[in-house]
Amino acid sequence: MKNVSLSPSGVEYQLPTEEQSAKELEELKRITEEQRKLGRKIVAVQGMGFVGCVMAAVVADAVDEKGDPLYFVHGQQRASTRSFWKVPVINTGVPPVSSSDAEVPEIFHRTVVEKKTLRATWLNYAYEVADIVVVDIQLDATKPAFGDASQGYCDMSAFRDGMKTLGKHISPDCLILVETTVPPGTCQNVVKPLIEEEFTKRGIDIEKHPSLIAHSYERVMPGAKYVSSIRDFWRVFSGVNEKSKDTAREFLNNILDTENFPLTELDNTNASELSKVMENSYRATNIALTLEWAKCAEKIGVDLHKVRAAIRKRKGTHDNLLRPSLGVGGYCLTKDPVLANWAMDAIFHIDEDLKMAIHSVDINDTMPLHTIDLIKEEYPELKDVKIAVLGVSYLENLGDTRHSPSETLIKFLNEYWAVVKTHDPYVEYWPEMENVPIEKNLEDALKEADVIIFAVGHSDYIKLEPKDVIEMSEGKPLIIDCSNFISDDKIAQYLKLGCKVKGVGKGHIEDLR
Amino acid sequence: MKNVSLSPSGVEYQLPTEEQSAKELEELKRITEEQRKLGRKIVAVQGMGFVGCVMAAVVADAVDEKGDPLYFVHGQQRASTRSFWKVPVINTGVPPVSSSDAEVPEIFHRTVVEKKTLRATWLNYAYEVADIVVVDIQLDATKPAFGDASQGYCDMSAFRDGMKTLGKHISPDCLILVETTVPPGTCQNVVKPLIEEEFTKRGIDIEKHPSLIAHSYERVMPGAKYVSSIRDFWRVFSGVNEKSKDTAREFLNNILDTENFPLTELDNTNASELSKVMENSYRATNIALTLEWAKCAEKIGVDLHKVRAAIRKRKGTHDNLLRPSLGVGGYCLTKDPVLANWAMDAIFHIDEDLKMAIHSVDINDTMPLHTIDLIKEEYPELKDVKIAVLGVSYLENLGDTRHSPSETLIKFLNEYWAVVKTHDPYVEYWPEMENVPIEKNLEDALKEADVIIFAVGHSDYIKLEPKDVIEMSEGKPLIIDCSNFISDDKIAQYLKLGCKVKGVGKGHIEDLR
Repeated sequence: MKNVSLSPSGVEYQLPTEEQSAKELEELKRITEEQRKLGRKIVAVQGMGFVGCVMAAVVADAVDEKGDPLYFVHGQQRASTRSFWKVPVINTGVPPVSSSDAEVPEIFHRTVVEKKTLRATWLNYAYEVADIVVVDIQLDATKPAFGDASQGYCDMSAFRDGMKTLGKHISPDCLILVETTVPPGTCQNVVKPLIEEEFTKRGIDIEKHPSLIAHSYERVMPGAKYVSSIRDFWRVFSGVNEKSKDTAREFLNNILDTENFPLTELDNTNASELSKVMENSYRATNIALTLEWAKCAEKIGVDLHKVRAAIRKRKGTHDNLLRPSLGVGGYCLTKDPVLANWAMDAIFHIDEDLKMAIHSVDINDTMPLHTIDLIKEEYPELKDVKIAVLGVSYLENLGDTRHSPSETLIKFLNEYWAVVKTHDPYVEYWPEMENVPIEKNLEDALKEADVIIFAVGHSDYIKLEPKDVIEMSEGKPLIIDCSNFISDDKIAQYLKLGCKVKGVGKGHIEDLR
Repeated sequence: MKNVSLSPSGVEYQLPTEEQSAKELEELKRITEEQRKLGRKIVAVQGMGFVGCVMAAVVADAVDEKGDPLYFVHGQQRASTRSFWKVPVINTGVPPVSSSDAEVPEIFHRTVVEKKTLRATWLNYAYEVADIVVVDIQLDATKPAFGDASQGYCDMSAFRDGMKTLGKHISPDCLILVETTVPPGTCQNVVKPLIEEEFTKRGIDIEKHPSLIAHSYERVMPGAKYVSSIRDFWRVFSGVNEKSKDTAREFLNNILDTENFPLTELDNTNASELSKVMENSYRATNIALTLEWAKCAEKIGVDLHKVRAAIRKRKGTHDNLLRPSLGVGGYCLTKDPVLANWAMDAIFHIDEDLKMAIHSVDINDTMPLHTIDLIKEEYPELKDVKIAVLGVSYLENLGDTRHSPSETLIKFLNEYWAVVKTHDPYVEYWPEMENVPIEKNLEDALKEADVIIFAVGHSDYIKLEPKDVIEMSEGKPLIIDCSNFISDDKIAQYLKLGCKVKGVGKGHIEDLR
């Protein structure tokens, strides 16, 4: 079934035939001509992933002072079995991502169906006609050794292929706006040479047509403000030359709410790229720091979460302090320090390590082991211990499981031959852990559990009453609170009902007895 | 001259004779009786240091709803040659500290001369009559090895002596409110046993009279809001038992602006003590992180300070990000992680290290060496190189030199046989570096300098025009900007005028040429 792309909702889409591609080409030509006549610029967004598809819709939604659309957007998605389904789905006005943000389906319907300013395609022809290409190709870090992020690296081959494709197709005056989080140095030292190489092959004089490359990173937050976090938020940008900066500035001013969130222009793309990975490294370090204090707090009768709340009263100087938890997941904090550290050697060939940031990734990646240590205080041998893990996503009230710390937790629990059940109201299927079934009913997950781990702060779990939890478990399970999800009042109830309770950073529990 | 205490303004005060002490005792008895009749509670503040003296004035300034003073305050200062002068100085209504805050002299004049609710004394009798003793004894960390804070410890002997003195003198119902930043565990594991031991010696039944001990830490900031930072700011407190908490709560509500800055009560004194050292450790870590990014930025053409400004736009999540600089000084960030780390072993006997926090102290303590590295890029041999250091205090627009990073800088420059001159508009005499003269005139400091280090961001230095600096130096000195004190525009002027410029975290300088 190599020629079929399966959507998450189970619909099969045949990959396009040559004939279909030829027809699509004609269609693209027709549309482009039509849109040009309407005075609109053509934008191609490369990659219909988590950021790219919503970014495409935001660009397609931008209007001038009269309310007329400024851009027509080709959402470019390669015809791969993994992702081709996004093209037909988007073209019916349906987003290729699920979200709790009501604006996501709205903006896709509005731009695809009503305004007809967004259309997905699999053809590179989209690049040929584009005035601007926004690059939203996924770029991952690889960490070959668990707990040793200093070995981490970035395989840029797919990204480089993407840039070569652009170099082969774009017009010399097209701006490449890289939005992907990239290792610092990428625009200047990777994108630019690749584009220039392809331009030269095409006979373009790169002295007369210096390539136009800019970088501007998004700060998207999954969740209820998904669209708004792309459109209505602070943006940083730069470019490899003045014309790139000017074009990027105009584009960003057109599509984003820069009146309320003025743009920040940095000197060069190295700065803009560094800014993104530094801001995530800052948060990663900030979380890592809390684990050592949590371990101390647990042993000296202190609730670190209350201490944190006390410290965070100092707005502007201390309120960024994050919390210890099961661990750190998601797509940014787990990889961005690695991209930065790797780039210093691999891209710049300089002898500087980002040791604190990398060490923080190690602490964060191994943080789930601390929760296992808490369990071991009661069950030194985990073999055959029945453990219910509540929450497998990486963030509360979301179904996103990328690099979820529950994954690490469960892998280790399995290694110890514990008997693990999982539950998550937002996750039906766990792509990273295909063999781990997710119980549909909480009762089934909790039944006969020796240990119940409150791993993620989903509202459904926060609301749970101790007596109900105990009833469902049919016993007196050990309760593990991974990040202050259970109030002191409820902890006291658990204790009264005969359960033991432990928590990350919660050393005061015995005093609640 | 052992019996003389010399004030910073050069006045000599004889230490009190026995006769004077006997007379002082009668005076204290008379005042106490008088104040009791006025319905005022008696507060003793132990230690007239940087925090204690202003805290004493704030307590003495507190009034009830009718505007009548609530407390009479004995500011207790031992009759040592080093500090006795504070007693007669305070008793003339003059603060024993210099400050840019106009409220400091005002509040001393108001409480000592007008309201007559504050009076300094050297007698322990102050404790005998006190309803509350506020402890503001200085407590330092010792770091025996430069760059290895893990060896740091806290010599608590003077603090313990202070507590024994209280145990010998206070009434069983007196609340001891520890305001000193102490190693976590101090109130419960150090103060309480010492007080109970002394109480027992005095025949006090400690079962019937459990000692009253609370902890509440200040967040004083030297500078223009010195008094306000003690009185009008968030406070955290706790106590060793309910009565201690209740008494402390009432006292703090009486003396502080808790209407606008409500109190935060924590479960126990371990939590309150941990909170203080954790909040400073958070900042210390935050600064340390920036150095590694600064070093990278310098090598890849990036101005890290602009990157920082871009990141800090994200209020509430990223705006605590601090900046790389010459180094970290002052009394808190340099020692508090050490107090915490030491306490885990020495007070709690638990096997937990605060590695990130301690490592951050090491990075911060050795940070001045990076500025030396910047100089060495131009002057590999520092011998006989004439270096002007602008600023020796630890903070801009202040004369406080405690643990100033300029101290480390100059010690190392001296080791390399560089010829160092210093200047600081706020510092006439440098107590920690008695042999280092401070030039009175900037011209004298800069004359013939090969290198000019902008070490501290005093406004006077920020204002300097490149042409004037170069004129005073009579050459083309290397300019070192330790923390973004020189604007891009001025850097361009220095470059134009033939100077080289380097800066911590400033990799973009060549592009300004």
